[in-house]
Amino acid sequence: MILKHEHLEAKQQELYDVIVVGGGAGGLSAAVYLARYNLKVLVIEKGRGRSFWMQKLWNYLPAVISGKELIEGGRMMALDYGADWLNGFVESVQDTGGEFAVRVKYRLKNSEYPVFRSKYLIAASGLIDVLPHLADMQNVYEYAGYNLHVCLICDGHEMTDQRAALIAGSESAINTAFFLSWFTPYISVLTQGAFPVSEAMRTKLAEHGYPLIEKPIARFLGRDHVMDGIEFTDGTVLKVDTGLVSMGSIRHNEYLEGLDLQKDSEDIVTDGYCRTSHPRLFAVGDLKKGLNQVSIAVADGTLAATAIWKEIRREQPARKWLENLRQPEVV
Amino acid sequence: MILKHEHLEAKQQELYDVIVVGGGAGGLSAAVYLARYNLKVLVIEKGRGRSFWMQKLWNYLPAVISGKELIEGGRMMALDYGADWLNGFVESVQDTGGEFAVRVKYRLKNSEYPVFRSKYLIAASGLIDVLPHLADMQNVYEYAGYNLHVCLICDGHEMTDQRAALIAGSESAINTAFFLSWFTPYISVLTQGAFPVSEAMRTKLAEHGYPLIEKPIARFLGRDHVMDGIEFTDGTVLKVDTGLVSMGSIRHNEYLEGLDLQKDSEDIVTDGYCRTSHPRLFAVGDLKKGLNQVSIAVADGTLAATAIWKEIRREQPARKWLENLRQPEVV
Repeated sequence: MILKHEHLEAKQQELYDVIVVGGGAGGLSAAVYLARYNLKVLVIEKGRGRSFWMQKLWNYLPAVISGKELIEGGRMMALDYGADWLNGFVESVQDTGGEFAVRVKYRLKNSEYPVFRSKYLIAASGLIDVLPHLADMQNVYEYAGYNLHVCLICDGHEMTDQRAALIAGSESAINTAFFLSWFTPYISVLTQGAFPVSEAMRTKLAEHGYPLIEKPIARFLGRDHVMDGIEFTDGTVLKVDTGLVSMGSIRHNEYLEGLDLQKDSEDIVTDGYCRTSHPRLFAVGDLKKGLNQVSIAVADGTLAATAIWKEIRREQPARKWLENLRQPEVV
Repeated sequence: MILKHEHLEAKQQELYDVIVVGGGAGGLSAAVYLARYNLKVLVIEKGRGRSFWMQKLWNYLPAVISGKELIEGGRMMALDYGADWLNGFVESVQDTGGEFAVRVKYRLKNSEYPVFRSKYLIAASGLIDVLPHLADMQNVYEYAGYNLHVCLICDGHEMTDQRAALIAGSESAINTAFFLSWFTPYISVLTQGAFPVSEAMRTKLAEHGYPLIEKPIARFLGRDHVMDGIEFTDGTVLKVDTGLVSMGSIRHNEYLEGLDLQKDSEDIVTDGYCRTSHPRLFAVGDLKKGLNQVSIAVADGTLAATAIWKEIRREQPARKWLENLRQPEVV
């Protein structure tokens, strides 16, 4: 059920089997499995995650849907199967020795700070892509997730043989151009002048015929979520059919600080069942090492939930059919 | 496009990037990704695989659908993106040194035996569950996949606190009772008298109150795909609400014989991207080691397709924007 103010006090007295931080593809898949394993699960979702912004999931069976449709459907499944759901922001997680204490900010105004307890934790809070920072961010949101893409694997096909702007956030991100060229060679590289570009990179871009544009972006041009040009601060315009933003991403993992999880660069390292270096803490989806794809996150949720269920199940003896074990009564 | 008789000759002259054997969840996910990577892919599907029989996928986001809906939707996606599709049965695969030669039986009557070639192969042919073998198999199919289940992870929740028949195919399969008891303790174990049961197992079952019934099954009782009893050959009837078949499964992997793939028991061993011990052969879904779940197969397809794309991409230089490299013409 969806937890509201009036439920918080009682629910803080319960011990959940699992608290899932994040209600995107990975967290929802985990919640669906956990609830179907008849475990007590709470999903805490802050809202507006990466999947919320995806207009088209082109590659997730069995049909092209939006990210919103995916997460709204998954949420209904999890609730149907008995999961608890809280709209809130996880501020911190503490391992109190055999249990996690999860402190949540509930409501932006008149905030409350309930603390929920669980045996296991699944970190499914994902990441968000960095977008160009313009004076008018609504202008960015108008096109981001439509034909201003953030994921080459997801959307490269849509850019096939189109004039594409690659908006890079660092020199190393410029290298995305050479992967993007698998789909289209008509690439202009935009840095917004935010970082210096080496002579070696300038030469390489020139050899490939990719213009390098270092002027700041003023705004994206187009209509009805279809970007068709980029205007720079000097008033010039680059005509494009599509764009790819490669400016990195921000992981939603502040609440895990202090738990000292093993990482590879910024990605959390997990085993084949998404277990982190903490034996009762699992990480699924974009937070962990691996491909950042919806299908992977959904499978991760399956794996983490199943590993947790097996562990909890093994701690308990098999249930007996007691009626069959009663001695005949003496009359 | 769907390949018909008139296409076979020309298509045998082509070199596919990838041939996918099996059009279930794993193969279709791979095909969708491969086609979106603009690679040439052929899916060969024999029909009536495991997902075809699943009436309800309870745990795959974002909605409860049937296996048929999953594979029909995925097939339409793959075709939309440009994959080729052939209804046929793969008889053998040979590695001819850098290429695979895939021999297919096309059409049950007036069969043809085309041979297709590819750089990579994805084995996605899965497995099929063994069902009780009764004189009237239609009686079995009436309930299998409805409330006569084959997968504890998928359907255990549906059996919660119901009277369940566990139909076991071996003594070790009887142990499934103790996992099933997580969902319900009202378990009757049926062996059909097909194998001897040890004294130790008899004692353990008795201690749990699970009746052991060793009589052959005559038929399943019920109506409208809802089984409510099992009749034995001696005319007695066991009233049940649900059933779980644990009689093993048959892997569709005959065509891989001779390729000497590394296995763990019957499962093909793969790396984190579903690559087998053969560097150009990937295995996804139920054929490989791991959980046999739709979500896992879909993610496997993502992983295998992406690994293949990266490898093919790296073999080719980045495409250049040639118009930008032309020297000005001398007038």
